[in-house]
Amino acid sequence: MKKVVIALGGNALQARGEAATSENQLKNVLKTAEHIAKIISEGNQVIISHGNGPQVGRILLQNEAGKELTPPMPMDVCGAMTQGMIGYHIQQGLSEVLRKNGIQKPVATVVTQVEVDPEDPAFQNPSKPVGAFYNEEEAAKLQREKNYVMKKDANRGYRRVVPSPKPKNIVEIDTIRKLVDNDTVVVASGGGGIPVYMHDGRYVGLEAVIDKDFASEVLAEQLNADILLILTEVENVCLNYGTPDQKTLGEVSADELEKYAAEGHFAPGSMLPKVQAVCKFVKSKPGRKAIITSLENALNGINGTGGTIVC
Amino acid sequence: MKKVVIALGGNALQARGEAATSENQLKNVLKTAEHIAKIISEGNQVIISHGNGPQVGRILLQNEAGKELTPPMPMDVCGAMTQGMIGYHIQQGLSEVLRKNGIQKPVATVVTQVEVDPEDPAFQNPSKPVGAFYNEEEAAKLQREKNYVMKKDANRGYRRVVPSPKPKNIVEIDTIRKLVDNDTVVVASGGGGIPVYMHDGRYVGLEAVIDKDFASEVLAEQLNADILLILTEVENVCLNYGTPDQKTLGEVSADELEKYAAEGHFAPGSMLPKVQAVCKFVKSKPGRKAIITSLENALNGINGTGGTIVC
Repeated sequence: MKKVVIALGGNALQARGEAATSENQLKNVLKTAEHIAKIISEGNQVIISHGNGPQVGRILLQNEAGKELTPPMPMDVCGAMTQGMIGYHIQQGLSEVLRKNGIQKPVATVVTQVEVDPEDPAFQNPSKPVGAFYNEEEAAKLQREKNYVMKKDANRGYRRVVPSPKPKNIVEIDTIRKLVDNDTVVVASGGGGIPVYMHDGRYVGLEAVIDKDFASEVLAEQLNADILLILTEVENVCLNYGTPDQKTLGEVSADELEKYAAEGHFAPGSMLPKVQAVCKFVKSKPGRKAIITSLENALNGINGTGGTIVC
Repeated sequence: MKKVVIALGGNALQARGEAATSENQLKNVLKTAEHIAKIISEGNQVIISHGNGPQVGRILLQNEAGKELTPPMPMDVCGAMTQGMIGYHIQQGLSEVLRKNGIQKPVATVVTQVEVDPEDPAFQNPSKPVGAFYNEEEAAKLQREKNYVMKKDANRGYRRVVPSPKPKNIVEIDTIRKLVDNDTVVVASGGGGIPVYMHDGRYVGLEAVIDKDFASEVLAEQLNADILLILTEVENVCLNYGTPDQKTLGEVSADELEKYAAEGHFAPGSMLPKVQAVCKFVKSKPGRKAIITSLENALNGINGTGGTIVC
C-alpha cells in the first residue's frame, strides 16, 4: 500500500470551452473520480488536492458584479468558499464511484489553511492575475482606492495581480493525518490552501494565491507520502515542448530534471512549478517518488508503466 | 466530560444592522469563540454547527448580479460555499482564543451533506424565502423560466421560496465522529448541511434549505452527545413572549415544553423549531439534556445555572 497525494489540475474540474455550470463541474468530477477510484481499489491510500483558479475567478466576478448590493469578500474567504464548493462535488462524485466499485470508504473535505512567510519575496512582486479585466481608468481607481496592484494584460485590459508566496506549513495537518490514518479519502489544501500567516498568536488571511502544486508538495511531505502524483493535460513532461525536437521524458532523476529546468525547458506558471514541486518532494527523503502525467494515465503512472516518473 | 453539540445562531456571526463584511464576521466569530473556549476549557468535547441564512442570501444576490458573466450556482453548491467560508473563520477565531488560553486542540471544518427524504411533504410546500426581492413581472418570469416558486413578501416584493425538508442523516457522520474521538473541535453541518437525497446509488444535491437546529439535533443524536446547546438572542425560552404575562422558563421537561408548543407559545421559524429540536433530542435517549440560551449565558447553561434547560 502506497500513500499517494494526487494534485488535480484544472481540467479535472472543468473541460476547455465548456460552460462553467455546477452540472458540468460535477460531470467532470465524476469522470475524474473513475480514475482515482482505480488507484484506491488497488489498495493505495489517497489524499486529493485540487486547483481553484477558474472557480475563484468566477466568485471574484460575482463579487464585483454585486458590490453595490453586498460587500465583496477578500481573496482568503473566496478561497475557503471554493474549497467547500469543489470538496462537496468531489465527495459526491468519488463516493458514488467507490460505492459502485464496492469500496466502503468515507470521502471528506477538510477546510485547509496554509501558512506562508510574510517576508516571502513574492509580496514585493505580485505576479498572479486574478478576477475581472478593467480599462485604464478603472484600473487606476482600484490602484488608488484599494491599493490593488494592477497589471496590463496583452490586449484584454488591466487586471489585478496578487502575490503567490511559497507554502510553508499545512495548518490542519494533524486533522488530515488522523483521517488518512483512519482510512478516509481526504480532500485537502484545495486551491493551494487558504493563505495565512501567523501574527501575534493568530493566523491572519492574506490577499494572495498559493500555487496548488507547491502546496500539494508540502502536504505530501508533511503526510510522509510515498508518491506525489501531479495530474495535468499531457501524459509526459517533454523537452523542447511543441518543437520538432520534442522529447518525451519517462523515468528521470530529480537532478536531471532540475538540469533541464535550468536550461529553460519548462514554461513558468505551467510545467515549471510542477517540475520544481516534484523535484523538491523526491529530494526531501530517500525513497520518495513523484509522477507527472494525465488523468487517463494516472494508474499507469502509479504502477510505473507510464507518465514521467521522478525518483 | 460532556459531549456538547453547540448550534450557533445568526448573531454569533453577524450583529444586527452591521455591514456584512468579512472583517465584521471574523470579529463576531472571535467574540463567540471566547464563550465557546470557556466551555472547552472546562473539559467538554465540543462540536459546532451554525446557520448560514444571511451568508447564503448574499451569495445568491451576487449570483444574480453576475449572471450575465458566469452561471449562477444552485442552492446546494452555495450552501457548500458558506460552509467553507464560515468554517474558515471559526477555525481562525476559535484556534486563536484556545491558543491564548493554553489549550492545544485542533479546530477543523468538515464539509457536510445532510440526507433528506425526497418524499418529505416540505417539497410539496416550499416555505423558506431565499435570495433577492423581485417585482411582479420578474417574479413571473422566474416562475415560468426556472420553475421557481415565488411568494409575495409583505411589502418588499416577491421572493423565491424553497422547501425546508427535515434532516434524516448526516452523510459525513463517521468522519466527524473520528475527529471528535481524536480530541478535535469539529465544525460540521453548517447551514443545516448541504441537502442531498440518495438516488440510484448517488447523493444528489437539492434546491432546499435544512433548518440548522433540526440538523444539529440529528448531529447530536448520531454523535451520541450528552447535551444539545442551541444559542439564540435570548437567555431563556419564554411563555407569552413580549406580553405583560411573559414568563421565563428555567428547568422544564420535554413533555411540558411540548405542551406549551401545542398551545402556540412559540413563533414558527423562530423559537418553535428550536423547541421542537431540543424536545426531540431529550426524548431520543434517557439522560440527554438540551439547553436554549444566549451566547453570553452558554457556560451557565452547561453548568446548570442559567438558560432554559430541558431534561
